Amino acid sequence: MNRLLSIACFGLAVVVVSGCQHAAPPTAKAKAPIMAEVLSNSTPADWRALDPENTIYMELASGRVVIELAPAFAPNYVANVKALAREHYYDGLAIIRVQDNYVVQWADPNAEKPDKARKIQHAHATLPAEFDRPFDANLPFTPLPDKDVYAPEVGFSGGFPVARDPHTGKMWLVHCYGMVGAGRDNAPDSGGGTELYAVIGHAPRQLDRNVTLLGRVVQGMELLSSLPRGTGAMGFYEKPEQMLPIKSIRVAADVPEAERSNLEILRTDTATFRELIESRRNRREPWFQMPAGRIEIGNVPVPVRVRGAGATKKQQ
Amino acid sequence: MNRLLSIACFGLAVVVVSGCQHAAPPTAKAKAPIMAEVLSNSTPADWRALDPENTIYMELASGRVVIELAPAFAPNYVANVKALAREHYYDGLAIIRVQDNYVVQWADPNAEKPDKARKIQHAHATLPAEFDRPFDANLPFTPLPDKDVYAPEVGFSGGFPVARDPHTGKMWLVHCYGMVGAGRDNAPDSGGGTELYAVIGHAPRQLDRNVTLLGRVVQGMELLSSLPRGTGAMGFYEKPEQMLPIKSIRVAADVPEAERSNLEILRTDTATFRELIESRRNRREPWFQMPAGRIEIGNVPVPVRVRGAGATKKQQ
Repeated sequence: MNRLLSIACFGLAVVVVSGCQHAAPPTAKAKAPIMAEVLSNSTPADWRALDPENTIYMELASGRVVIELAPAFAPNYVANVKALAREHYYDGLAIIRVQDNYVVQWADPNAEKPDKARKIQHAHATLPAEFDRPFDANLPFTPLPDKDVYAPEVGFSGGFPVARDPHTGKMWLVHCYGMVGAGRDNAPDSGGGTELYAVIGHAPRQLDRNVTLLGRVVQGMELLSSLPRGTGAMGFYEKPEQMLPIKSIRVAADVPEAERSNLEILRTDTATFRELIESRRNRREPWFQMPAGRIEIGNVPVPVRVRGAGATKKQQ
Repeated sequence: MNRLLSIACFGLAVVVVSGCQHAAPPTAKAKAPIMAEVLSNSTPADWRALDPENTIYMELASGRVVIELAPAFAPNYVANVKALAREHYYDGLAIIRVQDNYVVQWADPNAEKPDKARKIQHAHATLPAEFDRPFDANLPFTPLPDKDVYAPEVGFSGGFPVARDPHTGKMWLVHCYGMVGAGRDNAPDSGGGTELYAVIGHAPRQLDRNVTLLGRVVQGMELLSSLPRGTGAMGFYEKPEQMLPIKSIRVAADVPEAERSNLEILRTDTATFRELIESRRNRREPWFQMPAGRIEIGNVPVPVRVRGAGATKKQQ
């Protein structure tokens, strides 16, 4: 009993959207579907394969973390992370920090020891910040119908959570769970991708426009989020033996096709995705007594599945 | 280098709040303090000890999870959880579910097997829902100055994140990271505290007013959040050997004083706490390039420290 939060229940609540309740029988249109139904009604065109040229694999002893890169928002950082991966810069580096409800971070543990630090061959050590980008009406953007605490508009573009400000003419990626960014020192241009982090807690939106986001974990998030928290200041591991080695980071295009993670992601520029947002704003599963009627961007899932499986990998 | 997100940097940004920048030298009042300064300037009266009668300890092999209970919001559930603890109902039960970016849940693994299920002696198996409570102007309430996506008003009451709706005359606890609630089946009155959960991800605010929250983890959160994720549907562990045994749950008042966790929490009904909120709305640490100027309730920390230590246990 008490199997709390039975959010995957596949019951179907019929909701008459017309005011004429006495006249209209429930029609297909009048049913507000739950997410499982939205996904099972989706067509192949609602999904897109990950682009191997904009996907990286972080290989850990525990498995693979798949990160989709966001060249539309951080073109130079994305190019540099790929360049670093292609010169095998990250191989043998480590996860050095896990701060609860905040970030997992990986880097060269010897980055501050000039004699021991990993040498960069062709990539850049640092780059100018890419905290935001000019507003581009040609970039797909599916807005959330609800307000946001931090930005004038939020929504999704190419699978990524995005904010826009029509007044400043800027748009930017936002710090939701699983987003990946490039660590930096105090100077805005002191990052470059040699040190990366992923969000493992409540969306730390105060970081938006303060640090360059460049991608999102689309599979293997639990390999990062379940790591032991570091006991040093800000969650840094205090002893080298606590750090988790990174076997390698590779651009998916450089991995033999048979060894790639064959994933596809629900497109976010479709009627299906808008329907999914609605299914999460108003939860119609029988467990819910009071649908919220609104949603924060951090609570909108972007489903991922194994290609051709026809079933979602993850339904939260 | 690149020690990203150096949010604990103790630098001091001087901000002149007056428009007369040419006239006024920076004064103490004109300095916007960072959180570390707010805390180091706090007085003993800004802190309160946990009430042992409204604190429970969940003992795991890895350590102790300390949960502060919220009798002002869920009086009957709190009383029942204490009654269950006092009859040792939870001892030997287990963590049965860890769903990434969602919840950790503990219960009787045999709850649905009548012959094997743990028997309740004096406590209640189920209770009427306590999803919200009547608005009470006498309850302390420190509002956030910013809007909330889900509720007309949010703020803090007695250390807990709370929403209020003046129109319906209701107030309720909200699902922030670390909040603890009572699992239930589809019927609103099917919970009672035999099955409990803690939030380990982005605040799942869609659960607000759908399930009874009754407390908050104030120490030991990382013992829950870093657990291996369950691979079954909704993060349930699939094999008994994956479940993490609960050694015991005790009311702190029943634990010998020398064995209690001697913690104190920053009061949330003080000028100091309002100053802390402001220090998090506008981050003045030198790392930040663009203070957000606003904050979501899920991003407001409620500091906890060892009593008499004079230093915060945790600064995120």
